[in-house]
Amino acid sequence: MSAFAHRHLLGIEPLAAADINQILDTAESLREILGRPIKKVPALRGRTVVNLFYEASTRTRSSFETAERVLSADSLSIATASSSVQKGETLLDTLKNLEAMRPDLVVIRHASSGAPHFLARHCKAAIVNAGDGAHEHPTQALLDALTLRRKKGRIQGLRVAIVGDVLHSRVARSNVWLLSKLGAQVTLCAPPALLPKGLEPLARHTTNMDEALEGADAIMMLRVQRERMTGGFFPSTREYHQHYGLTVERLRRARKDAVVLHPGPINRGVEISSEVADGPHSLILDQVTNGVAVRMAVLYLLLGGVAEAN
Amino acid sequence: MSAFAHRHLLGIEPLAAADINQILDTAESLREILGRPIKKVPALRGRTVVNLFYEASTRTRSSFETAERVLSADSLSIATASSSVQKGETLLDTLKNLEAMRPDLVVIRHASSGAPHFLARHCKAAIVNAGDGAHEHPTQALLDALTLRRKKGRIQGLRVAIVGDVLHSRVARSNVWLLSKLGAQVTLCAPPALLPKGLEPLARHTTNMDEALEGADAIMMLRVQRERMTGGFFPSTREYHQHYGLTVERLRRARKDAVVLHPGPINRGVEISSEVADGPHSLILDQVTNGVAVRMAVLYLLLGGVAEAN
Amino acid sequence: MSAFAHRHLLGIEPLAAADINQILDTAESLREILGRPIKKVPALRGRTVVNLFYEASTRTRSSFETAERVLSADSLSIATASSSVQKGETLLDTLKNLEAMRPDLVVIRHASSGAPHFLARHCKAAIVNAGDGAHEHPTQALLDALTLRRKKGRIQGLRVAIVGDVLHSRVARSNVWLLSKLGAQVTLCAPPALLPKGLEPLARHTTNMDEALEGADAIMMLRVQRERMTGGFFPSTREYHQHYGLTVERLRRARKDAVVLHPGPINRGVEISSEVADGPHSLILDQVTNGVAVRMAVLYLLLGGVAEAN
Repeated sequence: MSAFAHRHLLGIEPLAAADINQILDTAESLREILGRPIKKVPALRGRTVVNLFYEASTRTRSSFETAERVLSADSLSIATASSSVQKGETLLDTLKNLEAMRPDLVVIRHASSGAPHFLARHCKAAIVNAGDGAHEHPTQALLDALTLRRKKGRIQGLRVAIVGDVLHSRVARSNVWLLSKLGAQVTLCAPPALLPKGLEPLARHTTNMDEALEGADAIMMLRVQRERMTGGFFPSTREYHQHYGLTVERLRRARKDAVVLHPGPINRGVEISSEVADGPHSLILDQVTNGVAVRMAVLYLLLGGVAEAN
Repeated sequence: MSAFAHRHLLGIEPLAAADINQILDTAESLREILGRPIKKVPALRGRTVVNLFYEASTRTRSSFETAERVLSADSLSIATASSSVQKGETLLDTLKNLEAMRPDLVVIRHASSGAPHFLARHCKAAIVNAGDGAHEHPTQALLDALTLRRKKGRIQGLRVAIVGDVLHSRVARSNVWLLSKLGAQVTLCAPPALLPKGLEPLARHTTNMDEALEGADAIMMLRVQRERMTGGFFPSTREYHQHYGLTVERLRRARKDAVVLHPGPINRGVEISSEVADGPHSLILDQVTNGVAVRMAVLYLLLGGVAEAN
Repeated sequence: MSAFAHRHLLGIEPLAAADINQILDTAESLREILGRPIKKVPALRGRTVVNLFYEASTRTRSSFETAERVLSADSLSIATASSSVQKGETLLDTLKNLEAMRPDLVVIRHASSGAPHFLARHCKAAIVNAGDGAHEHPTQALLDALTLRRKKGRIQGLRVAIVGDVLHSRVARSNVWLLSKLGAQVTLCAPPALLPKGLEPLARHTTNMDEALEGADAIMMLRVQRERMTGGFFPSTREYHQHYGLTVERLRRARKDAVVLHPGPINRGVEISSEVADGPHSLILDQVTNGVAVRMAVLYLLLGGVAEAN
């Protein structure tokens, strides 16, 4: 296999379809390790990964840490609350300092769109974007793609509905890029105030969920950020569920073999009913396992080449 | 040695005396590793343990993490404050998600009695209860038993007084089960409002500390939860110490070779005087070392069998 | 090389010049590991280091953790917020308990001067002071010395200005000890209220920054603790910068090849201008890398001897 064409993983937008497929193929082959009794290979032994999370995240951080551990990399995890940020240091100074400790790769989650790109321009370490503002969350889109591909055998030609607060969702944005690059047909569905402008060339837009689900192969539900419920963007939780919640009835509009994805954590009874979340169409827990595999692949591709040189 | 008869360690109540002895014997043999200059064996290499703590705990968490490290297991520690719980996710969803990352065992501490049992019914990973509400704290009782056995040579026939806030104590409850199963004679001693109902068949009850200590081979002091002092359950700290504090004078009621245990952290001058805590009868620090050994044994027994199969 | 003459690293004051040089020489030889693609050696495999931080610190804690990882030691990091301290336990009880889990070394940062010394008298584990109140921060002075020595080839005879809140600075105090022991000429410069008494035999004192910088080979800037700005010690940030901020203009007073150090995190535009911090005289990021090397050396010297005995 040829070397990965990028030094960083900043988003899906800059990737070619071939890059995406290379990550997915690598994830597919590494995923097998997670099924072994001894889930550990020495691929990245002696490599150090800093996990720098400026936003709380059990799920994504745990997934990266697990991926690092399985590949035998060393991890240094830093959460905002205990960081020098509180002492007024700039993001760049924090990273320059971390970098002087010679990590090989930095995974960063930050509330500002573009923070990882800024750091990539100024630092030597490889940067992986683990979510930047409302911009991108590339490993989430990659794990969604791996999940779809494993179940459907392909991405090309799939009809995918993405439903919820599309406007504020980096998950939606990364998925639109990925799915359109790999030839899926994407429909974005949201309440009028939460449907973004600018993605029309890549995806159909609608405010009607029934319409969005019609004939869909896959439905990606987005998480309702409860903290936004008071901002006037949303009606009540109950009203939201009525119009944009995924229920068993509504799921019948999609294809019989449609699959349901959600980045988690789910709000049961808000954007998704428990019956659907725990039902036979749901791939929510597969997504979590595939998330570890995809992050293993990203770390391996960004770091593995150098390791082989020794 | 035969395989351990249980998939989980949810409490002492479901264990047979033979199970308890198997854990204690295993702890005894693994404890020797802690005396070596290089305190590390590859027994659980490649196994992943999630430490999921919904209640703050330096002591118990550090002890489990140390046990995991000595056995070369990989650890992923998650504390409440930074977890998705804050995002409104249910306990079961949090665990199902963690489980999808394929850990081999989950150590859980939770404020609700029965939380580990609930998870054990719904998840594939082995579950170890590190304290559930006022219900059980099995590894604490096991380390207390190991400490007693190492000092006294046996549990059978020992007279053990457990003194303090018995009502709210999972430590007391697990110890009552363990000690009675192994044939010790237990006396529970507490202020009237803090003496529970329901344990009478297993232990003598008294509100008089002098009576409880009379002829005791071992005294297990319970920690006063200062946050409960304002709840009307307790008199003042000084008054509590006067009636239920373990002092050198009071210790004379017990046997000459009586030993003193405390789960820590201790409140000096409240439930125990410094003279006793630091004195020749105290086994408080032995308990800590034995705690690591007992947790190594539990992890080893719950995980080791599978490891050997490879 | 002969064994290190001390069991603990409590401060620079108790060290002889030969001890300091031994640490610096060891750091110099271990530093090379940080330039390797696989930054890991098995020197301290199976050794456990507890990082016990009673004050928040990303920088120092990350540096110690990195040093531990590079040397393959196992780490257990405990931060105040989650510790038993909150439950009212004394510092000594906390340490005795940690010690009963058999760590080989404890790195401690504490707000009270002398806390590490107190612990060293009462505990068996080796203690490394990672900052105690306004007293000492020995590894910072050692990394500063390594940085100077690498750049200037020597410490002996260098003229070093230390500028800022000297009164409250453990960094200044440790540096005064180290630099004077190794034969540098130190000038302390601070606003009148922030110039301590008692160090006159070891260093020249002045309140005039231009005077302090005159002919200096090295300038060590101290961090302004913003929380002290309101205490009446400081004028406004702007006024402070005007009198005690290091700017390009002011730097011209020093020797042409003068170097600039700062323990970080820096307050840009307060004690140091961005132009100087990011300029050619600045060694700020070298300090960070050297910090890992110095901590590796300290851990190695305090633990390595025993490891060799096995």
